[in-house]
Amino acid sequence: MKLEKLVGDRFREKPADCVVESHALMLRGGYMKGVSNGIYSSYMPLRRITRKIEQILREEMDAIDGQEVQFPVVMPASLWQESGRYESIGKELMRFTDRNQTPLVLGMTHEEAAVQLVREYGQSYTRYPFMIYQIQTKFRDEARPRAGLIRVREFTMKDGYSFHTDQADLEAYYKRCLEAYRRIYARVGIPEVLAVASDSGMMGGSVSHEFMLLTPIGEDSIAICEACGYRANMEAAECIVRNVRDAVSHSLERVHTPDCHTIEELCAFFGCEKKQTCKAVVYQQNTDNRYVVLFLRGDLEVNETKLTNVLGCAVRPAEITPESGLAAGFISPCGLNADCTVLFDRSLQNTDNLICGANRQDYHYIGLDMARDVGAVEYRDFAKIAERGICPHCGAPAIHISRGIEVGNIFQLGTKYTEAMGMTYQDEDGNTHHPVMGCYGIGVGRLAAAVCEAHHDDFGPIWPVSIAPWQVHLCAVRADNDAVRACADALYEQLQARGAEVIYDDRTVSAGVMFSDADLLGVPLRVIVSPRNLKQGIVEVASRDKTFSKSVPLETAAESVMHILNGMMHQ
Amino acid sequence: MKLEKLVGDRFREKPADCVVESHALMLRGGYMKGVSNGIYSSYMPLRRITRKIEQILREEMDAIDGQEVQFPVVMPASLWQESGRYESIGKELMRFTDRNQTPLVLGMTHEEAAVQLVREYGQSYTRYPFMIYQIQTKFRDEARPRAGLIRVREFTMKDGYSFHTDQADLEAYYKRCLEAYRRIYARVGIPEVLAVASDSGMMGGSVSHEFMLLTPIGEDSIAICEACGYRANMEAAECIVRNVRDAVSHSLERVHTPDCHTIEELCAFFGCEKKQTCKAVVYQQNTDNRYVVLFLRGDLEVNETKLTNVLGCAVRPAEITPESGLAAGFISPCGLNADCTVLFDRSLQNTDNLICGANRQDYHYIGLDMARDVGAVEYRDFAKIAERGICPHCGAPAIHISRGIEVGNIFQLGTKYTEAMGMTYQDEDGNTHHPVMGCYGIGVGRLAAAVCEAHHDDFGPIWPVSIAPWQVHLCAVRADNDAVRACADALYEQLQARGAEVIYDDRTVSAGVMFSDADLLGVPLRVIVSPRNLKQGIVEVASRDKTFSKSVPLETAAESVMHILNGMMHQ
Repeated sequence: MKLEKLVGDRFREKPADCVVESHALMLRGGYMKGVSNGIYSSYMPLRRITRKIEQILREEMDAIDGQEVQFPVVMPASLWQESGRYESIGKELMRFTDRNQTPLVLGMTHEEAAVQLVREYGQSYTRYPFMIYQIQTKFRDEARPRAGLIRVREFTMKDGYSFHTDQADLEAYYKRCLEAYRRIYARVGIPEVLAVASDSGMMGGSVSHEFMLLTPIGEDSIAICEACGYRANMEAAECIVRNVRDAVSHSLERVHTPDCHTIEELCAFFGCEKKQTCKAVVYQQNTDNRYVVLFLRGDLEVNETKLTNVLGCAVRPAEITPESGLAAGFISPCGLNADCTVLFDRSLQNTDNLICGANRQDYHYIGLDMARDVGAVEYRDFAKIAERGICPHCGAPAIHISRGIEVGNIFQLGTKYTEAMGMTYQDEDGNTHHPVMGCYGIGVGRLAAAVCEAHHDDFGPIWPVSIAPWQVHLCAVRADNDAVRACADALYEQLQARGAEVIYDDRTVSAGVMFSDADLLGVPLRVIVSPRNLKQGIVEVASRDKTFSKSVPLETAAESVMHILNGMMHQ
Repeated sequence: MKLEKLVGDRFREKPADCVVESHALMLRGGYMKGVSNGIYSSYMPLRRITRKIEQILREEMDAIDGQEVQFPVVMPASLWQESGRYESIGKELMRFTDRNQTPLVLGMTHEEAAVQLVREYGQSYTRYPFMIYQIQTKFRDEARPRAGLIRVREFTMKDGYSFHTDQADLEAYYKRCLEAYRRIYARVGIPEVLAVASDSGMMGGSVSHEFMLLTPIGEDSIAICEACGYRANMEAAECIVRNVRDAVSHSLERVHTPDCHTIEELCAFFGCEKKQTCKAVVYQQNTDNRYVVLFLRGDLEVNETKLTNVLGCAVRPAEITPESGLAAGFISPCGLNADCTVLFDRSLQNTDNLICGANRQDYHYIGLDMARDVGAVEYRDFAKIAERGICPHCGAPAIHISRGIEVGNIFQLGTKYTEAMGMTYQDEDGNTHHPVMGCYGIGVGRLAAAVCEAHHDDFGPIWPVSIAPWQVHLCAVRADNDAVRACADALYEQLQARGAEVIYDDRTVSAGVMFSDADLLGVPLRVIVSPRNLKQGIVEVASRDKTFSKSVPLETAAESVMHILNGMMHQ
C-alpha cells in the first residue's frame, strides 16, 4: 500500500474534545471519524487493526472449542420479553418498531439470541457442553459516550455463550475461557491485563470477572490487595470495617450546630474525625420516586451498585422537598419519621459516641450509640472499599485503588436465561433440567484503544506487531532522487514478495512530514532509504518504539528486515 | 471438527413455508434458524461459508485498489437528510430515535456515510481516484421478506464507493469493477452470472448493471436478445414497437359491447387480436392519491418502474370510485374528462383502426386513429418488453425473457450525493467541482443462497470447494469397530496436519444417517473408512456431486485425498 493513496487525513493538532490519548491519536492519525455521538466510521488503518484483533479472538475461541455463529443485530422484542430484560433494562436498550408495528430491539448483548438458536438442539444431555460465539456489531444507547473508542454507542464485540449440564462443568469451562482471555491479551500486546472479580449487574448470575488494563484514564476503579493479590472491581469489592467501641459510651445529647452544612464543617465544629460521624445519603428510586435514606460512617462513600442490587432498581440522588419530612443535611437515624426506605451500612455496626443529624435544622446529636439508640436494625454492605481498606480476602489493611479500562468480561450466568426462556435438557435418566450458561465478551474497538493507551508516545501509537495496521513502514526520503526511488521501489517489491505487509511512503515531502506521519501510523518497523544512506550503501531500520535503530547493507536489506520482523513477531 | 459436536439439527422433512430449495436446504442442514420475519441467525456451517465469501470479496476489492473501511450500522438521520433520501425512501428505511430524541436510521446502503467519511480528504484533485468498501450488516425493512436468504431484512453486504474527478475516470474504474465482479462469481462457483443493464432506482445516477444468476426461482425478469446478446433487467429494457398503419383508416364509431369486461372478451366480441386494441391502466399516486391513466396497446403490460421514474413517485393500482369520473373498464383516450394525469405509451404511436373504450358503460369505439382522434400527445416508453420482442440494441425480434436472482449491482452515481452533500474538490487550476461517484454492492448471504440454488441435488447443497464449510467430510462407518476408529482417527489427524479443513463423523450411527447428513452439509470431498474398505486395504474417496468415486490405498490415503483436493481447488 502506498501511503499517498491512503484515504484519511493526518494532522498535528490535538482535537479539542479529546480527554484520552487513544482518542486524540486515532483522530490525528486518520484511523476514524466521528459520525454521531458515540458512533464512528473507521478508515483503513483501524479496520486492519480490528480485523487482526478479530482473527486473534477467533483463533482463541476456536482453540477452546467455540463455534463461530452469527446472531442478528436487530431482534424482535418478544425474545427480550421472554428473558424479562425488555422491561428490566433501561434506555441503553434501543427499542423501535418496524413497518408492521412489531417492536424490535438492537442487540447490545445476545444471551436471548443464543438460547433461541440452541433451544431445540440442546434437548439431550449428550450434546453438552458447547460454546457458540460471534463477532458482530452491537448498539448500546449510552447516556454519556466518551473517550473515543473507550465508550461508544455502536461497537463490534466478540461475544460467546457456553451451555453446560451443571455448574461444575461450567466452572471447568470458565477456567479454560479465562486462560484463553489471558492469551488474547498477551497476543494483542497487553499481557499486563488483570482479571478482577466484578459485579454481575444486568447480566444476572453470580461469579464474574472483568479484565482490566490499569491506566489512570480508566473509567473503572479496581481494589487490589498489596498483601495477598486479591483484585476486584470497586463495584463488587466487599467493604470491611472493624469498629471498636470506646471505653465509655456517652449519652445521646442534642447540640446546636450553626453553619454546619458539610461533614467537614461538622468535624471542624466538634474537632473530630469523619469516621466519628454517621452520615445520611438520600436517593430516590427511579421506578416510583420513593426516598431511600442510607446511613453510613462519615468517612465512607456509597457504592451505588451495591445499593441498586439490594433495592432491585436504579436510583438517583434525591431532590429533598419540604413535603418529604426529611431535614436535609440533618437527617438522623434516631426518630426519623419520614415515609422512606431506611438502610444501614455495616460500617455503623458496633459503634458508639458518634455525631449525627438530629432531624432538625442546625442541630446534631452527639453520643450516638447505634445499638442503644437505633436498636436492632439490619446492617448490610453498601460502602465503597477505600484506599488502605481491609482486604476481604486476607484481612490486611492493604487495599490499593487503581483506575482501569475494562477490556473484557466473563460471567457465570447460571440458569437465569434458560429458565426464563424455557430451555431444558433431559439427563441420562430422563429427568428434565435447565442448562447452566456462561458468557464471554470482548469489545474489539475498545481493545484497540486500550492497546493504544498502553503503547504510545507523544507522537503516536506504537502498535504491537500482532495487530499493527502494517508491519513495515518504508520511507523513501527524497523520492525525487532516482537512486532513492529505484532502491525503495525494489525494496517495496522484495518485502511484499517475502510476505511482509508494507506501507510505502514515496511522496516528495520533507523527512519531517514523512516521519511524523509514520509516528502516527505506529507501524512497528521503519525502513528508511535516503540519499545519505545510499551513499553508505545501507538502509536504516528502526523500531517505532525507538528501542533500536540499525544500518543494514543495501544488498541484503530485504532479508535483514524480514529477519528483524520475524524476531518481533516471535518475541 | 467432529460432526458430533456441531451445534445445529439436521432433518429430512422439507419445512412447510419454503418456496425455494436453498431456503429448505439451509434449514434442513442446520445452516440457519429464523429469528423473526426476514431475520436469521447462522450456525457454524453457514458462518464458515459467508466468511469464505467475505474473504474472496475482500481480495477482489483489494485487487482493484479498494480500501477496507467500516461505516456504522446506526446513522444519524441528519446524514440522510443531507442527501434527501431521509424523505424520498419509503418504509424500507428503518427510522427511530435515541434516548435524546435524536432521529437515527439503520443503514441499508452507505452512500451518505461514504461521502461523510471522505468529504475533507477529497478536497484536492491529487487525491483521486479512490475506492473505499466495507463488509457490514445492513437492515432494510422489506414489506415481503421471502425465500430464505434471497430476500431478508437483515443482511451482510460488501458495499464499495469510488470517487473520481470526472465521468471518464469513473467509467474506466467501473469497467475494472465489473471485471472484479466476474472474478468473484467465478471464484464462488457461479461463473454463469450475467451482467445486465438495470434501472438505477433509488440510487440515482444513470448507468448501472445488475449481476444475475438465471434460475426459474429468481425474483427478477431479464430480457436477453438471442441474436446479439443484449441483456437488461426487464425494469430497464426499452420496449420497442413498430406499428404500420392499415391501408384504409376507418372512421371512429361507437358500438354497444354488452358483457365485454376484459380485453379477452372484447377481442372475442370483435374477432380481433389484442394488439388491435388500446387499453387503459389506472393507478393512483401514493403521495396524493391522484389518478394516473396510462394508455397502451392491448397486448402489452405496464412496466411500473418506468412509470414511477416518469412520475417521480410510487404508484399503486387505482381504486376507481364513482366520483372519479372514470368509466372503469371503458376508459377512452377520446373525450376523457376526469381530473387525472394521462399518459401514452409508445406502442400507440402510428396506429389506426384500434378498438378502445368509449368512456361509457358497455360501449367501445372502433376505428380509433391515435393521430387523428387523440391528436398531438407525448408518447413515452412505459411498456414491459415481451417475449419475442424487438431488441433495443440490434433490432431483431429475438428477446427471450428469463428469471434471475440479482447477486450484485454496480451503479454510476454521478454527482447526486456529492452535490447534495456539498463535497467538492479543487482541480489543478483552482476551480471547484463535485466528484463523480460509483457504488458497488454484493450481498453475502444472498450470494451463498444463489450458489446453493445453482449447485444442489435432492439431498443437499453441493458447495464449490472455494466456499464449502469444510473441504473434506470424513466418515467412519462403524466407528465402534476398533480398526475403523483407529484408521479414521489417524486420517483425521493426517489430513488436518496437511492443512485440510475436515469435518469428521465418528458417531455410531448407520451409514444411511451418516451419508444423508454429509449430503446436507455438501462438503465437496467425502472420505469413507469402513470395515469392508479396510478389508480391501483401501478408503473410498467420492465427490459430493457424484461425478467420481475411487478407492485409494489406505497407506497413502492422506496424500491421495490432498492430491484430489488440490485438483478441485485449482480447477
